[in-house]
Amino acid sequence: MPAIDHHAKSAWDTLEAIRAKAPLVHSVTNLVVTNLTANVLLALGASPAMVENVEEAGELAAVAGSVVINLGSMSAARTDAMQAATLAADRSGTPWVLDPVAVGALSYRSEVARGLLAHRPTVIRGNASEILSLAGGDGGGKGVDSTLDPEAAVSAAQRLAQSAGCVVAITGRIDRITDGDRLLEVHNGHQMQTRVTGMGCSATAVIAACLAVTRAASSDWLATTAQGLALFGLAAEHAAAASAGPASFQVALIDALFNLDEAQTLTGVRINPPPSEPRRPAP
Amino acid sequence: MPAIDHHAKSAWDTLEAIRAKAPLVHSVTNLVVTNLTANVLLALGASPAMVENVEEAGELAAVAGSVVINLGSMSAARTDAMQAATLAADRSGTPWVLDPVAVGALSYRSEVARGLLAHRPTVIRGNASEILSLAGGDGGGKGVDSTLDPEAAVSAAQRLAQSAGCVVAITGRIDRITDGDRLLEVHNGHQMQTRVTGMGCSATAVIAACLAVTRAASSDWLATTAQGLALFGLAAEHAAAASAGPASFQVALIDALFNLDEAQTLTGVRINPPPSEPRRPAP
Amino acid sequence: MPAIDHHAKSAWDTLEAIRAKAPLVHSVTNLVVTNLTANVLLALGASPAMVENVEEAGELAAVAGSVVINLGSMSAARTDAMQAATLAADRSGTPWVLDPVAVGALSYRSEVARGLLAHRPTVIRGNASEILSLAGGDGGGKGVDSTLDPEAAVSAAQRLAQSAGCVVAITGRIDRITDGDRLLEVHNGHQMQTRVTGMGCSATAVIAACLAVTRAASSDWLATTAQGLALFGLAAEHAAAASAGPASFQVALIDALFNLDEAQTLTGVRINPPPSEPRRPAP
Repeated sequence: MPAIDHHAKSAWDTLEAIRAKAPLVHSVTNLVVTNLTANVLLALGASPAMVENVEEAGELAAVAGSVVINLGSMSAARTDAMQAATLAADRSGTPWVLDPVAVGALSYRSEVARGLLAHRPTVIRGNASEILSLAGGDGGGKGVDSTLDPEAAVSAAQRLAQSAGCVVAITGRIDRITDGDRLLEVHNGHQMQTRVTGMGCSATAVIAACLAVTRAASSDWLATTAQGLALFGLAAEHAAAASAGPASFQVALIDALFNLDEAQTLTGVRINPPPSEPRRPAP
Repeated sequence: MPAIDHHAKSAWDTLEAIRAKAPLVHSVTNLVVTNLTANVLLALGASPAMVENVEEAGELAAVAGSVVINLGSMSAARTDAMQAATLAADRSGTPWVLDPVAVGALSYRSEVARGLLAHRPTVIRGNASEILSLAGGDGGGKGVDSTLDPEAAVSAAQRLAQSAGCVVAITGRIDRITDGDRLLEVHNGHQMQTRVTGMGCSATAVIAACLAVTRAASSDWLATTAQGLALFGLAAEHAAAASAGPASFQVALIDALFNLDEAQTLTGVRINPPPSEPRRPAP
Repeated sequence: MPAIDHHAKSAWDTLEAIRAKAPLVHSVTNLVVTNLTANVLLALGASPAMVENVEEAGELAAVAGSVVINLGSMSAARTDAMQAATLAADRSGTPWVLDPVAVGALSYRSEVARGLLAHRPTVIRGNASEILSLAGGDGGGKGVDSTLDPEAAVSAAQRLAQSAGCVVAITGRIDRITDGDRLLEVHNGHQMQTRVTGMGCSATAVIAACLAVTRAASSDWLATTAQGLALFGLAAEHAAAASAGPASFQVALIDALFNLDEAQTLTGVRINPPPSEPRRPAP
């Protein structure tokens, strides 16, 4: 019988805490994924709220357990709401996650994203091209889909984590998470996630729910972020085994998040440090 | 063989009328549930339209069979559209339903909601904390989820029904509906409804569809509101029996609404007056 | 063994090209169908982006493979974004599709739709009443649902195609597509499409994906439009055979689009010119 993996054990503890506490996760997110994000959070055990007007976004952020800021749908009014929400989060110590959708591909949101960094995100999650762009490089993004391998962006992520003082997660076939110093990899997930809209946005929301319940107990946001990505990816693996295409996969994924149990979590979560240099075989 | 319940019979008549007439239900609703609301209305047999700009909302409300105003997503522009739609509904005698999402928890929308009462809603449907807040009490709401038992809010609902001159429905494990004088309970529904976003909003839309087809025949909005809640709750019961988690539940719920037949309705609808005081057992 | 139908063969070639090239399809679409549209495009093999603010809509339209403009949700700000996107599309030669939702039923959007014609749409797809209205007639529309038989609108479609210099598609039980001169019919599809919101919007998006991959190879937009409608209708036929109601139908439809194979396409696509006058039976 294998030894219990401590990352898997912590992921299970985090999931149990979400189910027990039902933290309020406030999302200012894009118009494509509002419904999906809310249902992912409910299936996980959290309590979602979507408030995106400047009159209310700050008021809610101050009392929420965590906040999601997703740049998928932009407008001057939404920018105002994002700034109000993140300012309130920063002032009240509410952890918040930035999802810089299509930053690098579109000028307006790239500027907004850089402005939001002043309100000190807890975590930034994006694909390789979004993280590269936000860190100051050329992301090569085509709309919302990354055309780069995550490997190439790890050093940019470390730079961004250091300059913004937060955790940065690059998601892809393998997810890489860094606090600027340490690095973790998550090997959960399934290829079908690339054929359903909002899977990255959902992963961001799951991270936010995890931050909400660990904020009292820990400030190890690096590990917490990895746990969120692993839990979501693990549910995706179960869903892929029980579906016939992208729409039944999405249904099965939300059901799997709802039903994820201790045995599945302890045996399924795959979080680890990056591999060391391969040993040279003995001559 | 049990006597046929007259509430169940009326619920079936209402459902048949919706399917026959396909009433146009105009919703100014929140960004999270637009798609779900439209699909619930289509599955029921109604004809949904979502128009939320001030240029058009009043024009459509004047010709619709009924109107839904849902406060889940607010902005100054949406407030203008809500005011135009409800003014047009009031002037043209179109029944309309107010869904005061998160009123009490957020200041801006609480003020908007109180302003809309001047345009005389036909029905207000909310959870216990929303109704308590709108009636002038402290709802204790946490975002959109009620943290109170519906029982506690019944007297507030009666007060609100009298002052606003409308029917008020508090939904929860047991739904309570009052016109300020009479009181009905609906015992349909399933716990899984709390794990899918927009279930309350969907119930509101179903009520609106029911109002649209009974407006000529009846002004017993109390009974009509109870019928809508019972039909939706009954479909949820069938869905829960055929699903594995919240996403497959939502799919099965819309299918069940579409497939609801006379036998299921006559035997499944559970509408009744509140129980009288329990009889003291004979000594 | 039947001869291979050249329309079916071309439809399969187009689908293969979408899967190989994953063209970026930029939609300014309504708030009800954003998620569905994105998932339909992903299932088909395209790469969706939804950007609807004036700051970014033109920037994206200039680099997209094609653009969708859907009038389902209107506002002054969205009108500005639609004008920016279509102007950029026109200038850069990007094909774009106009979906004039509820034009004729609502005054504001009818005026906007007529204004957008100046930016030369490649295709206009609507139901009979929408096309009649846009061509200058009385559509008799009730919100978004057509109350007219498509037959009645064919001559209006031909007039509109000639005056706007584009292809016009009227969808219904039988789809009719014209470039003002030639006429094609598509006999794919299923009645259940009328019970799910956004099926017309989805068909529009599929047409746009097809235009994106054929723009280099062909300017036969008439045939390409028919192919898109046939592919979507064929997936609907497969979905109807595998579902129990409108919600499971929608899930199965997206799965079917994803799984559509060569044999299904070659045997299932039903595109043809309109029938000639029936031959008088020999005496």
